[in-house]
Amino acid sequence: MMQDNSITDTPFMYVDGQACTTIWYDYEQQATCIIDQTQLPHRFSIIQLRKAEDFLTAISDMQVRGAPLIGATAAFGLATAIAEDPSPANESYWLHRLQATRPTAINLHWSLNRVSKALQGVDIANRPSAALAEAENIRTEDMHICETIGNHGLEILTGLWKKKAGQDKTLNILTHCNAGWLATVDWGTALAPIYKAHQAGIPVHVWVDETRPRNQGSRLTAWELQQQGIPHSVIVDNTGGHLMQQGMVDVCLVGSDRTTASGDVCNKIGTYLKALAAKDNHVPFFVALPTSSIDWTIDNGLTEIPIEVRDARELTHIEGVDKNNRIVEIQLSSHSAVVNYAFDVTPARLVDGLITEYGVYSATKTSLLSLKQLQEQSNE
Amino acid sequence: MMQDNSITDTPFMYVDGQACTTIWYDYEQQATCIIDQTQLPHRFSIIQLRKAEDFLTAISDMQVRGAPLIGATAAFGLATAIAEDPSPANESYWLHRLQATRPTAINLHWSLNRVSKALQGVDIANRPSAALAEAENIRTEDMHICETIGNHGLEILTGLWKKKAGQDKTLNILTHCNAGWLATVDWGTALAPIYKAHQAGIPVHVWVDETRPRNQGSRLTAWELQQQGIPHSVIVDNTGGHLMQQGMVDVCLVGSDRTTASGDVCNKIGTYLKALAAKDNHVPFFVALPTSSIDWTIDNGLTEIPIEVRDARELTHIEGVDKNNRIVEIQLSSHSAVVNYAFDVTPARLVDGLITEYGVYSATKTSLLSLKQLQEQSNE
Repeated sequence: MMQDNSITDTPFMYVDGQACTTIWYDYEQQATCIIDQTQLPHRFSIIQLRKAEDFLTAISDMQVRGAPLIGATAAFGLATAIAEDPSPANESYWLHRLQATRPTAINLHWSLNRVSKALQGVDIANRPSAALAEAENIRTEDMHICETIGNHGLEILTGLWKKKAGQDKTLNILTHCNAGWLATVDWGTALAPIYKAHQAGIPVHVWVDETRPRNQGSRLTAWELQQQGIPHSVIVDNTGGHLMQQGMVDVCLVGSDRTTASGDVCNKIGTYLKALAAKDNHVPFFVALPTSSIDWTIDNGLTEIPIEVRDARELTHIEGVDKNNRIVEIQLSSHSAVVNYAFDVTPARLVDGLITEYGVYSATKTSLLSLKQLQEQSNE
Repeated sequence: MMQDNSITDTPFMYVDGQACTTIWYDYEQQATCIIDQTQLPHRFSIIQLRKAEDFLTAISDMQVRGAPLIGATAAFGLATAIAEDPSPANESYWLHRLQATRPTAINLHWSLNRVSKALQGVDIANRPSAALAEAENIRTEDMHICETIGNHGLEILTGLWKKKAGQDKTLNILTHCNAGWLATVDWGTALAPIYKAHQAGIPVHVWVDETRPRNQGSRLTAWELQQQGIPHSVIVDNTGGHLMQQGMVDVCLVGSDRTTASGDVCNKIGTYLKALAAKDNHVPFFVALPTSSIDWTIDNGLTEIPIEVRDARELTHIEGVDKNNRIVEIQLSSHSAVVNYAFDVTPARLVDGLITEYGVYSATKTSLLSLKQLQEQSNE
């Protein structure tokens, strides 16, 4: 893993003023602790995953979500399964079950393979501790990777801010879905550069796409930015085009669930529409991602990435707080058919740069090949 | 007003199997009757507007919405004001108050001016009946105009359907917001061609954009299509780009709140994003509108059309049905700032054609000039 002089190596994320991360292993309780993100912003609740089975629910019901956090959670899930039964047969069984929880995020696959690889040649008695150690490695590395992405992204934001003319010196950044610390272990991907910019004294303001149907923008990103004291405004997903036409967005910054070897970016549904508007209005469009989310085996994102279709209920029902401050779920629409694709693919031609832990790369096959070589060298 | 041989001159719209229109004057009750569209799809409720004051609420609270229906409602509103006090001073007072209810829809202005013009030279005793007669004219004309738009749009849909190759012969149409009969007096603008196609035996399927923040798509368009028995699926506003990339949309068809003399189209926020995706994927993008919604005084939609900013509450709160089948309002997000623009502008370059009651016109200044001349001739 690439290091950087400006890595602080201390947790960044704060909840109600307390340092926190999105996932950690409690050795006393012998449980993996996560934030139940389905309860945010109404309730901040930590839950303990004790059995391998719990991890399947946590990932598929989206108590944890975001490609990097899904990867880390799956690693602890496999470690938990190995603790229950260290046999290679059980490892293989759980590797497949955990892999099947979400089809689109590629580093789910990557992290499970890493744990599996760490078990090679380890005798049966030591397999539980080896698996847990590798899950811990993945967790720690993710924190470093995200902070490094933040540092590389900061250079871009600083450049854009310095170029910004006129009276209004606030840097307006549009983001979609949640690619903040809630989507990773700490720092986030797309939000990490924004946190670094805020720390560096650049006045930032974030346009937060609501991100239907699960509202990760208004529920998670807005809450996360509140916790960190970053100025922001929530907008519906329809609004970004108008803002860009009116010069109210300086840069778009999003995460990625899977990026192809030629730079096509699969991310939360609706990302493609914002990329089109950015191109049409000459607004830079950047994607922040760990290299673990690059799928080197495919080129064409539009034909080769499976797009998850989720439950219609995510669209027809919604949770909120009623006038008595109780959390209730209501049904929004009547008996129409509903189709709920979770991701779309932004073609590489619409992407101005990929911000990774190795630096900023063009969304082209050649540029990404040099990234791959660098990554392979640093893994040797 | 242009007529057409294929005008049926009978109401089209059905609610629970009963013929209906969105607005009518009840002479016995001396009240204007409207459907309270804020209650749909959960309750179908007719309300009576008795005082001029009631019309202000009806329009600004969006009990009625959609440019043509706003126009018709304002006309009855001015007629009601004239009935209360036929003096020119009162006419002028209410003309301004009604005009101020919504800033973007241009035929609000147009219909108020028509009623005002019809009062010129009429003696004071006859002003109430003259105003009401002109409101009735506007209502009847709107029905004819929309059906004629339907006939012209049908030609386009028939052409696209005949060209459609392969096994799947269903014509997939994407629409945004509600430009159906609920947005007009009857038939609708963007939905009229779809109703005509369905009647003509073309198998249609409509992708219904949810249309945040007020969900006119999932609340109104889906309900309206259900009433008419048209196959459709509700999608979140983020989804259209993905569907177009995957060849799942044959044509986009939307309405307009105001169109400039050079063909820029102001419509519900998010329309521009769909137009960009249509262009990027070679999907035809058509706008259906009565010529009364063309603002001949302006060219540049991006700089010259005032974009209404509505209450943050539309975004942070939402109404639905709880598990006890009661209609409740809940709060979705916490205490973030919210910005709520209601419309955006789709530049003429992204529009493949404007379907009007005079036929289909290119979104260019030259083409629209010929439409204007035709319109002026037929008004002589």
